[in-house]
Amino acid sequence: MSASTPTLDLSRSSVELTADMCNIESVSGNETSLADAIEQALSGCAHLEITRDGDAIVAKTSLGRAQRVIIAGHIDTVPVNNNLPVSYREEDGAEWLWGRGTVDMKAGVAVALKLAAELSAPAYDVTWIFYDHEEVESAKNGLGRLAVKYPELLVGDFAILGEPSNSTVEGGCNGTLRVEVRTHGVRAHSARAWMGENAIHKLAPALTALAHYQPATVTVDGLDYREGLSAVGVTGGVAGNVIPDAAALTVNYRFAPDKSVAQALTHVQDVFAGYEVVVTDSAEGARPGLTSAIATGFVAAVGHEPQPKYGWTDVSRFSALGIPAVNFGPGNPSLAHTDDERVLTSQIVECEHALRSWLSQG
Amino acid sequence: MSASTPTLDLSRSSVELTADMCNIESVSGNETSLADAIEQALSGCAHLEITRDGDAIVAKTSLGRAQRVIIAGHIDTVPVNNNLPVSYREEDGAEWLWGRGTVDMKAGVAVALKLAAELSAPAYDVTWIFYDHEEVESAKNGLGRLAVKYPELLVGDFAILGEPSNSTVEGGCNGTLRVEVRTHGVRAHSARAWMGENAIHKLAPALTALAHYQPATVTVDGLDYREGLSAVGVTGGVAGNVIPDAAALTVNYRFAPDKSVAQALTHVQDVFAGYEVVVTDSAEGARPGLTSAIATGFVAAVGHEPQPKYGWTDVSRFSALGIPAVNFGPGNPSLAHTDDERVLTSQIVECEHALRSWLSQG
Repeated sequence: MSASTPTLDLSRSSVELTADMCNIESVSGNETSLADAIEQALSGCAHLEITRDGDAIVAKTSLGRAQRVIIAGHIDTVPVNNNLPVSYREEDGAEWLWGRGTVDMKAGVAVALKLAAELSAPAYDVTWIFYDHEEVESAKNGLGRLAVKYPELLVGDFAILGEPSNSTVEGGCNGTLRVEVRTHGVRAHSARAWMGENAIHKLAPALTALAHYQPATVTVDGLDYREGLSAVGVTGGVAGNVIPDAAALTVNYRFAPDKSVAQALTHVQDVFAGYEVVVTDSAEGARPGLTSAIATGFVAAVGHEPQPKYGWTDVSRFSALGIPAVNFGPGNPSLAHTDDERVLTSQIVECEHALRSWLSQG
Repeated sequence: MSASTPTLDLSRSSVELTADMCNIESVSGNETSLADAIEQALSGCAHLEITRDGDAIVAKTSLGRAQRVIIAGHIDTVPVNNNLPVSYREEDGAEWLWGRGTVDMKAGVAVALKLAAELSAPAYDVTWIFYDHEEVESAKNGLGRLAVKYPELLVGDFAILGEPSNSTVEGGCNGTLRVEVRTHGVRAHSARAWMGENAIHKLAPALTALAHYQPATVTVDGLDYREGLSAVGVTGGVAGNVIPDAAALTVNYRFAPDKSVAQALTHVQDVFAGYEVVVTDSAEGARPGLTSAIATGFVAAVGHEPQPKYGWTDVSRFSALGIPAVNFGPGNPSLAHTDDERVLTSQIVECEHALRSWLSQG
């Protein structure tokens, strides 16, 4: 740890701590200073056993409790865009903290860090995870790396991921499948179009299918998952006077967690029957994880009706490990990554109270 | 003229002269050596008055004939692709000359150059034009430059452009109009597609209209012009997880010379009613130019039924100047610009004979 490591004062309020953590810039790939500060802040806690791997930190209790909870959050952010340092602003009588990371997801991480230090005898054993590289390609993801290198640290009965969810429980997540719908033709000079075969024209039925598509809403374990099937890209064309011999439509299917990637692909192949469909990217969804007693107890402690999570998050990594997992953190997910990213400070307090109460009483 | 100027021997046959001219590489922008050789070859002809402008050469007779014919051809080619020097090959008992420029259009230029020197007393006054930069953007076109700088040189009763037409008369040319059909939407994360408005999906009716479009064949002055309406490009998309807020389809309309660009645009706007349609490029077509007595005489001398020209050529520049013009030159236009560009040597001879006979007898 270098002499220049910034320090975090965990006696400050969770709102102040959020601001302090946001002001330690940690765009993906640049998490070391913040990881150092977190490690240093927790190093004096006798109830925690700390593991550091790269810029990920795992701090776990070993109190011999009957059940173990994993509480995780990533410490990196998307790039700053003139929105640091943070500032407090009042809007409609409510206080907001503005700046990069306030929503995604240093508020959730600040709450976790404060409680990790303060709750020396929680009702469940807790594995606190602070990890790097969530906002970039999946291969770099710190949680994924820990799961491979330290599988023993990723054991638990329930997991809470502090991703923004307006401090309500958002269960599971939709899966995502990206495909290219490709067409082929024959080049010709556009002055003699009849000599060729236009690959772009062949996309017409595919686009019509998309334009008329009625996405389903699927109920899984009591939560309603809204699906979507969307063109996210289209390319084709050789030159202004050439009939194109190739075109491609990129389609993203966000599917409810009642389906596997394979089942989602079958559906997409049905929609684009007769086309060449090539998978370019996919990730399984995650069921809500709300059926266990421990999850039910957590939902009751939070006191809000659980909601489905539409976006893909790392809860599905827990899901894949067989650990029921939910999203629970301050901030409106629609404000994540935006230039006007901001969190209601009352949601930070609310999140802290709910987690503290549940972890204290079980 | 530099000491290294290659020389052209106009006493060689038109086929040999074609080969010689092809072997003086003259990709657009690199025409100077060939232009120098042409100027030098014609400089000894007392019956010709020569004007040089850049790499364009105009050589005209002034014999006081009742009518004047312009015979023009460009001396540049598209880039060479391992197809120089030229070679002779036999196929199905016929002799072909292979290589860049054999079709487009040094065979036509070789015939013109030979006749310019040899026909010292043609039945019509003749303005021979050899010009640069036809294969690149219109603003650089040597014929266009001459028309602006030397309008007095572009006066005539009839024009023959030596573009490849299988040594038959191809009359006029289709016009061309290029438009972008643009759509607009609202960005959103593709995990919440219902928050956005997908600009790519909005292209569906436009593509369906193209896929179902039945292009017309329009008879103009007795020639049948086949039209075409084709997508030549499509773009849209922001990122793999974003509902796109903009998309654009580039459409090329090749329209018969019974229509102006303005009329062609009205038609395209009808096809894409309700869309934003932005013109990116256009060029008027040209009527066949076969109604005058001089044109009728020329067609009779050639002895083949005239055909429509589908591609846009510089005949429309003559048309715009009020000069009836036709394409007439050796070579199959479908082989222009191809890597296996090649001309039937018999077509070079046929072209030379027809022009020589008509110009000699009137």
